[in-house]
Amino acid sequence: MASQSWFPIPKSSHFSLANIPFGIISTATNEVPRAGVAIGDHALDLAAFSAQNGFSSVSSIQKDLTVFAHHTLNPFAALGRPVHRQVRRFVQDLLRIDTPFPEILKNNKQLQAECLIPLNEVKMHLPMQIGDYTDFFVGKNHAYNCGVMFRGPDNALQPNYTHLPVGYHGRASSIVVSGTPIHRPKGQILANPNAEPKVPTFSPSKRLDFELELGAFVCRENKMGEPIPISEAGDSIFGLVLMNDWSARDIQMWESAPLGPFNAKNFGTSISPWVVLMDALEPFRTLSIQNDTELLPYLREEKNNVFDIRLEVDLAPESGPATTILHSNGKNLLFSFSQMLTHHSVGGCPMRVGDLLGSGTISGTEDGSQGCLLERSKNGKDIIKLSGGLDRTFLEDGDTVTLRGVCGTEEDGLVGFGQCIGRVLPTMSS
Amino acid sequence: MASQSWFPIPKSSHFSLANIPFGIISTATNEVPRAGVAIGDHALDLAAFSAQNGFSSVSSIQKDLTVFAHHTLNPFAALGRPVHRQVRRFVQDLLRIDTPFPEILKNNKQLQAECLIPLNEVKMHLPMQIGDYTDFFVGKNHAYNCGVMFRGPDNALQPNYTHLPVGYHGRASSIVVSGTPIHRPKGQILANPNAEPKVPTFSPSKRLDFELELGAFVCRENKMGEPIPISEAGDSIFGLVLMNDWSARDIQMWESAPLGPFNAKNFGTSISPWVVLMDALEPFRTLSIQNDTELLPYLREEKNNVFDIRLEVDLAPESGPATTILHSNGKNLLFSFSQMLTHHSVGGCPMRVGDLLGSGTISGTEDGSQGCLLERSKNGKDIIKLSGGLDRTFLEDGDTVTLRGVCGTEEDGLVGFGQCIGRVLPTMSS
Repeated sequence: MASQSWFPIPKSSHFSLANIPFGIISTATNEVPRAGVAIGDHALDLAAFSAQNGFSSVSSIQKDLTVFAHHTLNPFAALGRPVHRQVRRFVQDLLRIDTPFPEILKNNKQLQAECLIPLNEVKMHLPMQIGDYTDFFVGKNHAYNCGVMFRGPDNALQPNYTHLPVGYHGRASSIVVSGTPIHRPKGQILANPNAEPKVPTFSPSKRLDFELELGAFVCRENKMGEPIPISEAGDSIFGLVLMNDWSARDIQMWESAPLGPFNAKNFGTSISPWVVLMDALEPFRTLSIQNDTELLPYLREEKNNVFDIRLEVDLAPESGPATTILHSNGKNLLFSFSQMLTHHSVGGCPMRVGDLLGSGTISGTEDGSQGCLLERSKNGKDIIKLSGGLDRTFLEDGDTVTLRGVCGTEEDGLVGFGQCIGRVLPTMSS
Repeated sequence: MASQSWFPIPKSSHFSLANIPFGIISTATNEVPRAGVAIGDHALDLAAFSAQNGFSSVSSIQKDLTVFAHHTLNPFAALGRPVHRQVRRFVQDLLRIDTPFPEILKNNKQLQAECLIPLNEVKMHLPMQIGDYTDFFVGKNHAYNCGVMFRGPDNALQPNYTHLPVGYHGRASSIVVSGTPIHRPKGQILANPNAEPKVPTFSPSKRLDFELELGAFVCRENKMGEPIPISEAGDSIFGLVLMNDWSARDIQMWESAPLGPFNAKNFGTSISPWVVLMDALEPFRTLSIQNDTELLPYLREEKNNVFDIRLEVDLAPESGPATTILHSNGKNLLFSFSQMLTHHSVGGCPMRVGDLLGSGTISGTEDGSQGCLLERSKNGKDIIKLSGGLDRTFLEDGDTVTLRGVCGTEEDGLVGFGQCIGRVLPTMSS
């Protein structure tokens, strides 16, 4: 049964009392970006609340009352998971119908007016300053489906695939918050991949795709040369967001040998604005995809270290209704974020607060659960019908892609990510 | 004939009046990192010089006298190439024997004592705050030699290789300044790559290598979605450094399919501390490696856009003398940094001030000009003799690798990079 709040929270809200996700907000009347939490249809302005001494009973915040006044969540994230836990619980207590501190907010209409802002009046910003961004490839069903397309079923997965979380370094500068439009990239493509000699043409991508992913933010540094043991990796993860790793498949096909995708990915990556803390996800731990390979000891951990997050994606053409084109789940991963982080650092790579790890595309095994159009349309062969009578194989200019993810039930209070939205704009002329 | 200075500059110095490279310095008496230029055996402390009104006749610096007081060169780099040029010329004028401003420094012993610091009393720091780091692979001889080793001479280069500068995103957090030791990484390796099934073991890398590269720092932003035309790319490059892209070949072999190198590279990348401005390199423009492929228009530029930089690498075991094990040249590239930058942004990827682009390993065609041990030892088959009687195929713990690069002649004044030094430490126990 959900904790009840004295503050009205719609039952269908992703931001129940069980959630309390953190983000960076601003408003028309105060354009300075600052920290907030989402609660129902509102944001609680943590900078204003903190300045009004709202955290007077939270010792960790009392030490630095400006921690929520920064333009990013990095300073708060850097305080560590025990502090995230303390602050989240305090905000939950503050908003509970039987709050032990009614004088702070429940009975203080003036502070409510100052600090509780309707979400439709809030502008969301990138929640973290991202140092390095790494994208993994641990959605095994996606890796398998793509492998079958390009190498056949016998060699679909590379020999290393089940032994380690395969990943590559991505581009941090083009990570944007939900709502930011994405220009269709242009680049070198092979108009006819089977012609010889292979001579590329220069054109806007004709195979623009999304990828449904989860992202994890790092909240603890390790020194260069000092790996993060698997037993401590969980303490290094601040929280998760939805992530759309936009991909230009034709550019990718031509450029990727031998060093991997580059311009096919670096033109834009969208993330949802609210960081759902690991503590909020704790009740939704579940089993990852079964791995029959015996892992090396440094990667061994309990198997229930992924999360039962119901994921879906809508596609809306410029004129026409949105169609939910896929349903997947956050448990469709072969490795956990803790395993990704431990593997990432095992050679001594230093992680910094604000680094972002992507899971890779999260596909299920059934039709309609493929996490990108490349898989769903079998590289352009199958047509996806939209509800307005249109159809798609890849994205058209004007299309809006919306990712959603949510855990739990309305009865117990939803723990959701809200949305990660991006609209495709035409290639910029130059 | 070199410009003469009233200040003593050894003839063999990389830092003649013709150079004036920028870096971030600190000293025992002032531990705050700040900007300086190298001149002979000394650094000119630009923060102190600026604070004493040394730049009173340089309008671009007068606008912000604190630009050299920052911990990185980013604020100065962001002022743009016309300002870099103005400041470099002013410093050259200041130090010329026939300086038009003798009162500022030549005849001011007190300011000299404050601002001119022997290099052996200077600690060097990372010169830039690096947002994103991208490593290219445009050393064609290196790409060919490696391709022959792993795919044979007929398929040594991938079909895309001559059409675009192949590159991948690297790890910014592990870029360190010359002198920082590097711990040997551990990770998954295949003890016997030919055995089936392929089951990795966990061990310190047994094939640790260096890579001789040049790095270029970006000094101008482009907006997301807006490519940098080739005609403007040169204005976006601040200057060059030497770069050692340490590589663990056994980790790389196992992990790289299908997304490219990851832990094999992200444990450390060393750069030389002094950024040699593009203006200083201008006289050394030369022809790149001939490319018989007709490039797409967006990549076409004059062919003399690489630089005649004499490169060499020393290897010194823990006990024993250093041996110069290779000689190469900065002209051994198929694409210029301008072409790399234009290609990088052509899909709309936003570049930021401080981003670093690596060239890829720079090898010549002759024996003894291979830019890494993988090539030089033919993947461990050939032994490299060191002058102390020892030999190597890959790096041992305690080995020190020193990169050097220099242009021009002593007569005209050398334009050099100094050194990029790194010592291999054993794997950290954990």
